[in-house]
Amino acid sequence: MLQTDPLSATFAALADPTRRAILARLSQGVLSVSELAEPFDMSLPAVSKHLRVLERAGLIGREREAQWRRCRIDAAPLKEVANWTERYRHLWEGRLDRLDGYLKELTGKKEAKGHGRKQQRGKQR
Amino acid sequence: MLQTDPLSATFAALADPTRRAILARLSQGVLSVSELAEPFDMSLPAVSKHLRVLERAGLIGREREAQWRRCRIDAAPLKEVANWTERYRHLWEGRLDRLDGYLKELTGKKEAKGHGRKQQRGKQR
Repeated sequence: MLQTDPLSATFAALADPTRRAILARLSQGVLSVSELAEPFDMSLPAVSKHLRVLERAGLIGREREAQWRRCRIDAAPLKEVANWTERYRHLWEGRLDRLDGYLKELTGKKEAKGHGRKQQRGKQR
Repeated sequence: MLQTDPLSATFAALADPTRRAILARLSQGVLSVSELAEPFDMSLPAVSKHLRVLERAGLIGREREAQWRRCRIDAAPLKEVANWTERYRHLWEGRLDRLDGYLKELTGKKEAKGHGRKQQRGKQR
């Protein structure tokens, strides 16, 4: 159970509202642990524990700046989440032909990297 | 810890490769528990336990068909995951002005529900 695949580790790290709030704050820039802890009704060690979970999942990194350690977001695992979720978009968009949508997505990825084929999807509303 | 918010429950349910594989199979149609269990090297009770986690998170539903109970996927929670993840897309797409992207997204949500303002984002490549 401890040796989880990367996507499972990402999902597990995101399964907590405090950790998601930390990521939301870091999406605006690097912050120290104490700056990060400020808005939370939580001890520094409790915040640090959440940061360790995020760090193990690769969602944040730490950098030294003079005597402070600052945290920055690393969005690469979030991209994997988006890619994974995208496979199910045809379901919630209520496509009539689910299989057709699924196949289009698969072939679209191969054939039309960066082209307009997928532009009609998802961003309409 | 037990009374989790819906998004946390969804992420927790997705933090397991077997549960994601179950969803992948259900994305192609309804299946009975034994049909679902077939490709997994796992007992029926173990599969059932995973199904309960998915059901509690609202990711699957059960329906009776004659004497069988069948499972179907419910993609609504996955839409919430996609919406949540979308807020971070500007980060992994390496936008130069992160704050600008973030602000545009915030104001875009209020000002341009369903309009074309967000179409340039995310689907270009």
